Amino acid sequence: MNDKRTALPNARQNPRFAGLGTFCRFPQICHVAPENQPVDWAVYGIPYDGGVTYRPGARFGAQAVRDASRAIRPYHTFHDVNLAEVFSLADAGDAPVSPYSCAETQEQAAAYARGLGSPGHTRLFAVGGDHSIALANMRATYEAQGRPEGGMALIHFDSHIDTVDVVWGEKHTHASVFRRAFEEGLINPSRMITIGIKGPLNMPDDWDYARDQGVEIVSYDDWRREGSSRIDEFADALGEAPTYLSFDIDVVDPAFAPGTGTPSFGGFTSGEAIDLLRRFGGVNLVGADLVEVLPDLDPSGITAGLAAQVLFEILCLDAVRVGRGA
Amino acid sequence: MNDKRTALPNARQNPRFAGLGTFCRFPQICHVAPENQPVDWAVYGIPYDGGVTYRPGARFGAQAVRDASRAIRPYHTFHDVNLAEVFSLADAGDAPVSPYSCAETQEQAAAYARGLGSPGHTRLFAVGGDHSIALANMRATYEAQGRPEGGMALIHFDSHIDTVDVVWGEKHTHASVFRRAFEEGLINPSRMITIGIKGPLNMPDDWDYARDQGVEIVSYDDWRREGSSRIDEFADALGEAPTYLSFDIDVVDPAFAPGTGTPSFGGFTSGEAIDLLRRFGGVNLVGADLVEVLPDLDPSGITAGLAAQVLFEILCLDAVRVGRGA
Amino acid sequence: MNDKRTALPNARQNPRFAGLGTFCRFPQICHVAPENQPVDWAVYGIPYDGGVTYRPGARFGAQAVRDASRAIRPYHTFHDVNLAEVFSLADAGDAPVSPYSCAETQEQAAAYARGLGSPGHTRLFAVGGDHSIALANMRATYEAQGRPEGGMALIHFDSHIDTVDVVWGEKHTHASVFRRAFEEGLINPSRMITIGIKGPLNMPDDWDYARDQGVEIVSYDDWRREGSSRIDEFADALGEAPTYLSFDIDVVDPAFAPGTGTPSFGGFTSGEAIDLLRRFGGVNLVGADLVEVLPDLDPSGITAGLAAQVLFEILCLDAVRVGRGA
Amino acid sequence: MNDKRTALPNARQNPRFAGLGTFCRFPQICHVAPENQPVDWAVYGIPYDGGVTYRPGARFGAQAVRDASRAIRPYHTFHDVNLAEVFSLADAGDAPVSPYSCAETQEQAAAYARGLGSPGHTRLFAVGGDHSIALANMRATYEAQGRPEGGMALIHFDSHIDTVDVVWGEKHTHASVFRRAFEEGLINPSRMITIGIKGPLNMPDDWDYARDQGVEIVSYDDWRREGSSRIDEFADALGEAPTYLSFDIDVVDPAFAPGTGTPSFGGFTSGEAIDLLRRFGGVNLVGADLVEVLPDLDPSGITAGLAAQVLFEILCLDAVRVGRGA
Amino acid sequence: MNDKRTALPNARQNPRFAGLGTFCRFPQICHVAPENQPVDWAVYGIPYDGGVTYRPGARFGAQAVRDASRAIRPYHTFHDVNLAEVFSLADAGDAPVSPYSCAETQEQAAAYARGLGSPGHTRLFAVGGDHSIALANMRATYEAQGRPEGGMALIHFDSHIDTVDVVWGEKHTHASVFRRAFEEGLINPSRMITIGIKGPLNMPDDWDYARDQGVEIVSYDDWRREGSSRIDEFADALGEAPTYLSFDIDVVDPAFAPGTGTPSFGGFTSGEAIDLLRRFGGVNLVGADLVEVLPDLDPSGITAGLAAQVLFEILCLDAVRVGRGA
Amino acid sequence: MNDKRTALPNARQNPRFAGLGTFCRFPQICHVAPENQPVDWAVYGIPYDGGVTYRPGARFGAQAVRDASRAIRPYHTFHDVNLAEVFSLADAGDAPVSPYSCAETQEQAAAYARGLGSPGHTRLFAVGGDHSIALANMRATYEAQGRPEGGMALIHFDSHIDTVDVVWGEKHTHASVFRRAFEEGLINPSRMITIGIKGPLNMPDDWDYARDQGVEIVSYDDWRREGSSRIDEFADALGEAPTYLSFDIDVVDPAFAPGTGTPSFGGFTSGEAIDLLRRFGGVNLVGADLVEVLPDLDPSGITAGLAAQVLFEILCLDAVRVGRGA
Repeated sequence: MNDKRTALPNARQNPRFAGLGTFCRFPQICHVAPENQPVDWAVYGIPYDGGVTYRPGARFGAQAVRDASRAIRPYHTFHDVNLAEVFSLADAGDAPVSPYSCAETQEQAAAYARGLGSPGHTRLFAVGGDHSIALANMRATYEAQGRPEGGMALIHFDSHIDTVDVVWGEKHTHASVFRRAFEEGLINPSRMITIGIKGPLNMPDDWDYARDQGVEIVSYDDWRREGSSRIDEFADALGEAPTYLSFDIDVVDPAFAPGTGTPSFGGFTSGEAIDLLRRFGGVNLVGADLVEVLPDLDPSGITAGLAAQVLFEILCLDAVRVGRGA
Repeated sequence: MNDKRTALPNARQNPRFAGLGTFCRFPQICHVAPENQPVDWAVYGIPYDGGVTYRPGARFGAQAVRDASRAIRPYHTFHDVNLAEVFSLADAGDAPVSPYSCAETQEQAAAYARGLGSPGHTRLFAVGGDHSIALANMRATYEAQGRPEGGMALIHFDSHIDTVDVVWGEKHTHASVFRRAFEEGLINPSRMITIGIKGPLNMPDDWDYARDQGVEIVSYDDWRREGSSRIDEFADALGEAPTYLSFDIDVVDPAFAPGTGTPSFGGFTSGEAIDLLRRFGGVNLVGADLVEVLPDLDPSGITAGLAAQVLFEILCLDAVRVGRGA
Repeated sequence: MNDKRTALPNARQNPRFAGLGTFCRFPQICHVAPENQPVDWAVYGIPYDGGVTYRPGARFGAQAVRDASRAIRPYHTFHDVNLAEVFSLADAGDAPVSPYSCAETQEQAAAYARGLGSPGHTRLFAVGGDHSIALANMRATYEAQGRPEGGMALIHFDSHIDTVDVVWGEKHTHASVFRRAFEEGLINPSRMITIGIKGPLNMPDDWDYARDQGVEIVSYDDWRREGSSRIDEFADALGEAPTYLSFDIDVVDPAFAPGTGTPSFGGFTSGEAIDLLRRFGGVNLVGADLVEVLPDLDPSGITAGLAAQVLFEILCLDAVRVGRGA
Repeated sequence: MNDKRTALPNARQNPRFAGLGTFCRFPQICHVAPENQPVDWAVYGIPYDGGVTYRPGARFGAQAVRDASRAIRPYHTFHDVNLAEVFSLADAGDAPVSPYSCAETQEQAAAYARGLGSPGHTRLFAVGGDHSIALANMRATYEAQGRPEGGMALIHFDSHIDTVDVVWGEKHTHASVFRRAFEEGLINPSRMITIGIKGPLNMPDDWDYARDQGVEIVSYDDWRREGSSRIDEFADALGEAPTYLSFDIDVVDPAFAPGTGTPSFGGFTSGEAIDLLRRFGGVNLVGADLVEVLPDLDPSGITAGLAAQVLFEILCLDAVRVGRGA
Repeated sequence: MNDKRTALPNARQNPRFAGLGTFCRFPQICHVAPENQPVDWAVYGIPYDGGVTYRPGARFGAQAVRDASRAIRPYHTFHDVNLAEVFSLADAGDAPVSPYSCAETQEQAAAYARGLGSPGHTRLFAVGGDHSIALANMRATYEAQGRPEGGMALIHFDSHIDTVDVVWGEKHTHASVFRRAFEEGLINPSRMITIGIKGPLNMPDDWDYARDQGVEIVSYDDWRREGSSRIDEFADALGEAPTYLSFDIDVVDPAFAPGTGTPSFGGFTSGEAIDLLRRFGGVNLVGADLVEVLPDLDPSGITAGLAAQVLFEILCLDAVRVGRGA
Repeated sequence: MNDKRTALPNARQNPRFAGLGTFCRFPQICHVAPENQPVDWAVYGIPYDGGVTYRPGARFGAQAVRDASRAIRPYHTFHDVNLAEVFSLADAGDAPVSPYSCAETQEQAAAYARGLGSPGHTRLFAVGGDHSIALANMRATYEAQGRPEGGMALIHFDSHIDTVDVVWGEKHTHASVFRRAFEEGLINPSRMITIGIKGPLNMPDDWDYARDQGVEIVSYDDWRREGSSRIDEFADALGEAPTYLSFDIDVVDPAFAPGTGTPSFGGFTSGEAIDLLRRFGGVNLVGADLVEVLPDLDPSGITAGLAAQVLFEILCLDAVRVGRGA
């Protein structure tokens, strides 16, 4: 176990509803004690939503996740791991963005992420924003990991495959992000799994590009028929491969995540999605993102609340590995 | 395959959030090109909610479904069918209604529906409004189908059986619609299945009338115990029987459809309900309705969004049949 | 069967949306006819939320459940029992509370409850308010039952185990209520089952106190792995033991109950929770509570609606016993 | 001063948020002590909204006003009068309604109202429901007052003049109520003032019928130009004439009353509307209604809250007269 | 008076809540009868919100205004003019947009507008979308009017002056639209009045550019001090000058228009804003826009409802001129 | 003018929607540069709502004001003053609270406030929480000012006078805060003005205690009759007296501030309230609070938005004094 620790406020003394909301009440990165530096995971926001194809508003998503994550406690009962003991964690603020340019935002945010913590040690977790921001974090993670040959493996939870080439004449959109990641060599499509996608589609061949690239697709319908065996196999095969995880909150049914921009109906319950996530406990997770939380359509805050839980679950996947002595 | 086609706007050029919202962005019926006439399915609204027994407001339901259905794409991944290729589809506007009289509305709406497309060819899909409007569409469909002997078969998704005789002295209400349909010979109760009903009830014998008529009842509790075997058997036995489908959005749990007038708690997830619907792929669907969407209680629009998906799923059931060469 | 009856308004004559809302339209206790006295179950509110650790507002919960429970009908299809025939039921109003003191409120409310109906005969159902109010009803029930030796058995549905010793220097909080109940001898921890709890926790040992006391814990994760066998065994073993049931609405996923103060994500659907509840049909239920409904975060009223259904389901558990001739 | 008194719960001991909500926490009429009988004012609900021309839902209005009126205290600082000292007041429950028939509802509700308290003594205050319910209360009041020759005077606050003859073939609607009241002789149009109406209209002559009958119209635009002089003159001229007051909550701008069915934009602030109401302090108010509160469009409850205040303000107008020794 | 007429559905026969919502129920432009062509005013949407600096979502504004404007009737009581008699009016659909480029959208939308009706005759009314879309409509109007020398006069209602040069490196934004209009010669700044602007500002000189250009500024604070005299003088001085009107819904206080992206607190009531608008009755209005309606923050629909009223009020300003024989 | 400056992020480079929300984007107090220390005003939250008498939830108010105040710019157009130039300002975080004890919270928060900046120099602005938290800030301010003889002057905006002695047996509540402040000598009642209070009241003498103490009461009704002359006179007479300002957001009408716990209907518009506030420009403001923002009842965020504007307006009152050379 790492001897670093995350200094969390004691909620039995300081209420969770008090204070500036940081991700899971982690310290701001500028306040991390020297003995806990460099941090193991830097969680930061990218408040950009100019890449959407339907409803905008996810620029306010990172802040909503921060507020909701006040309720997160550090010990995970299923994995039997205490995040605050295993990792030094920090809220690294929000990356600068260029609200009128997706490509510029991706560059600015990647540059910001590269500067967080200590490259090679610190792992990067970006909270969106729309899915287009994932490219920034994949770029920064890929470089921080020394540009793994063939690209990183990818675990992708989403209702949409996001490998569209061009939308409205633009190559950088929330629907194109993984196509760009393949082209830039960040992700190895033959070590990518997409979980939970579902239709309807514009054309039957909308998923073919990904399939042709070797992506393992476990659609929601596949999962209803097959269960999770292909997911477990994929997880087992990952071994120590440097792996990135991208979680689009719209992978769960809109009953669980109404606050999102391109809802897709008839999907996972939150219990099912979390069960699938946990199957990746112990992978060599080198970076992650959580995207598409849209607070204006989330009147009771349940979308942001679930996103906060998912943020915690993802960090714990890596904590399991560390707990095993990795 | 039919050589007719539905002309949909290309969303990768014209955004889905633009333009007057028609059902699934189908053309208005007056704008259908001559080569695509008569349309195969005419989808129209009946903005009436005077038949309710609890919360009114479903008069705004058809418009909410139109707006939400902007997000529907034409290709169905599970059934492997492209609606826009298989069918000529149109939004046929809203039927005239008589807001102070259920019986008059049923007559006016049936008359309107009879005038849509080409009787015998065009199939009718009514979007409510409350469930009382189903009678109008069943009447028009029955006649368009040449008054099938013994009445049409019926697939009924609902939390309520809707075979009450009289409510507050009135025979035409949203709780009475199938009793009237039996009496008018529109529906053959011995070829009717009701899926998803659940209590509590006023009296133990509230379901007896339907059972006595021969209705196959698969309550939500039955389904939890038995699974879907009786549903599959019913579907298989339908063969080429002219079949009507009536979908009350309250059949799913209120978490998935909060915007409805008589919510019933502890029901299907949307994934489960859609799974059951799909088991009817390939039936000879001659008409359908989708009712009880109440937008004022739907702050995030998830009820209307799910309804739009269900509208699409139902049309695809018939497309499967056509795809098989029927 | 009891020859007492609950006089319900006939909703087919008097609409459910009319009149002062009482729990399930039961008569106010002062209006129960002499032949129906003493009532079998007195359902009353405790509008107190000063014991919360996160979001307050449950003081308005009892009134919201009353309003939503207008829709409840008396006959239960699964259990085949008609509450209004089996029991004399009444809405016993709201207990007095001391909004600035949890301990005083618990005393006042217990005193109020002791005065309802006929002790020894009348069983007490408290609707919160936050979970701290359960102590009041457990005290009153325990005394009305003649202080059962070793304490009452307890069926507990919740996302949180609520056995924390002290919060912010205070022993009476919504997180401490069962620890106090053990200490006061009201509940026998070795005859207690907690269903649905889940993390994250502050510390790995947060559940240890309860385990050490002998509490049977079936966490949500346990249930996903094991199914309901331990629950069924516990129910079977209860026999005629005087049993109390405490239902915290946050046990279901926030999609089903957004209106609650300490939501926990990734939980039961309402269908699953109700299925588990029904496994206790026929236990010797001597008291119950239903807590943590927070209307201000419930824009469509689905939390209160589900709570009303749960209130009905719980009463029916005892009705099953009576129906069996107990 | 009357020696009768209204027994209000002491909110400094019993919180306002506790207990069944009755209008302003007045006692239910069945609980009024003998020495306070017959009551001076009976406030009752008519939960009917079948007379609307746009958005329904006001059937839940009376209950929402009850809940919101928990916050009303009895002493009026402007008029220097304490309602609870001046009057014996009661919540008289909800009238029976016939949800599918406006005319029947008007008859049933009028019959119910006639039975409240002691005719000739008890004055009737109906809370809607839509404006069509006013006819019921005007009928009952007119009779209780011994059928005043020429009809009662009328003070009418509204955005709409509600003197349309027939809507969709129906004579009994929320837009027709005063035309019917003229025809039945209940109201003397030449002693009627309409305050706050505003356009747009279907036709320029929509207001002519009322003008021709002698109604004093002070439109919102008139008031902006002229101030309140004509209103003051009308109030002065009323003298001891038996006067009825009808208040449609849509007379204020939708910012102050979003929860209403036919909102009209650009109207009074609540401060302005209340100022105008108070100018009628001391009139011989023999009956009143308050209508068109639609809770489903009132997410923060401000419409119901304002309506509760208006209910209080109206009762105080009569209390001023009594305070003067009338 | 023009002998053309607008064919409106008769709402006393066809309910306002029925049918596809077009602006004020005007006919779609493709359905205007030949005798009513070319239309006098074409009202169209520009569903673009990529130019915002704070909250996006106004891309759904035009559709929300359409839905809300179902309630608009054609006769204006204050101006004594019936829009449907004076003008041939049409809903001209939505312009194509390029969601990722403000400049392209402005070009596309202007091109679309140029094609509506008959240039020189048909006047153009654009409904946003954010304020950046006004440039498109000003361009098209300017050209349709034969490029008036010195540019058009401008009446501007807004909380923000929108003459910022560059935001985040971009010249085309919702804060820059009038600066661009000056530069392109579309608007004559010395014939422009800005009504209702208010702070706070980033710098004291944020309004100086406009003042230096000769813009008449009547801030909200000015209006509180001075009343409307300068506004009246400006209106009088307009004479027959071709005048454009731009109305940003955020000019009213957020209580009246919560659904907007950059709310400014402490502003006009809707009654005050409409009063000021009416002072321009009879100007030679050659084009107009209405912008910044953001439906996701408008839970009761009052913002869209007020916008619909403002749309009607603006059209009536020109109808007054025509009514005078212009 | 002070040569200190507040370092604000440049919103034309860093979007206002990005980053951790601090009050008005002021720096966190730990990040203030040495040359700007000690700060002139420390703005901090007190997240406590246990002192309420009706609806709780204001514990989340400070965070909501922080988020909404992202939109605040530093230059005030009416006063012609730039806050960021005049003052060194900081967000001083949230005070510790004791959620189960009002008295302890008041002590803890006062102790926290005493430690902020440099006593005697730094002025304290507390954001609630409910009104009970004002006592903490008045105590700390009083001491920091060297315990001004006779107590501080007080400007109080509120719908409620908050001088009740005891509520439910408790002396420390949101309704009692000024009575305690008189008793502790913090406030000189004869130099206190209360603006905007209105009824209804429990008893006619509810305001008498304050009147007897010499408080100047300008009720909302007084203001409608008299205008603001007494307010102006009071402001003039303040001279250099150390003055505290307490602003309860419920002083404006609920249309402008729906998100509050004890709404009072028929009050100021936000424009009116801000106009009255500005009349105190230049007073010697030594401390202030802003209370009773309840986010759960504020679906569009307009209450928090107005509160952010009021926070800015209050700080500017002191900036005016400094701008004059004080």
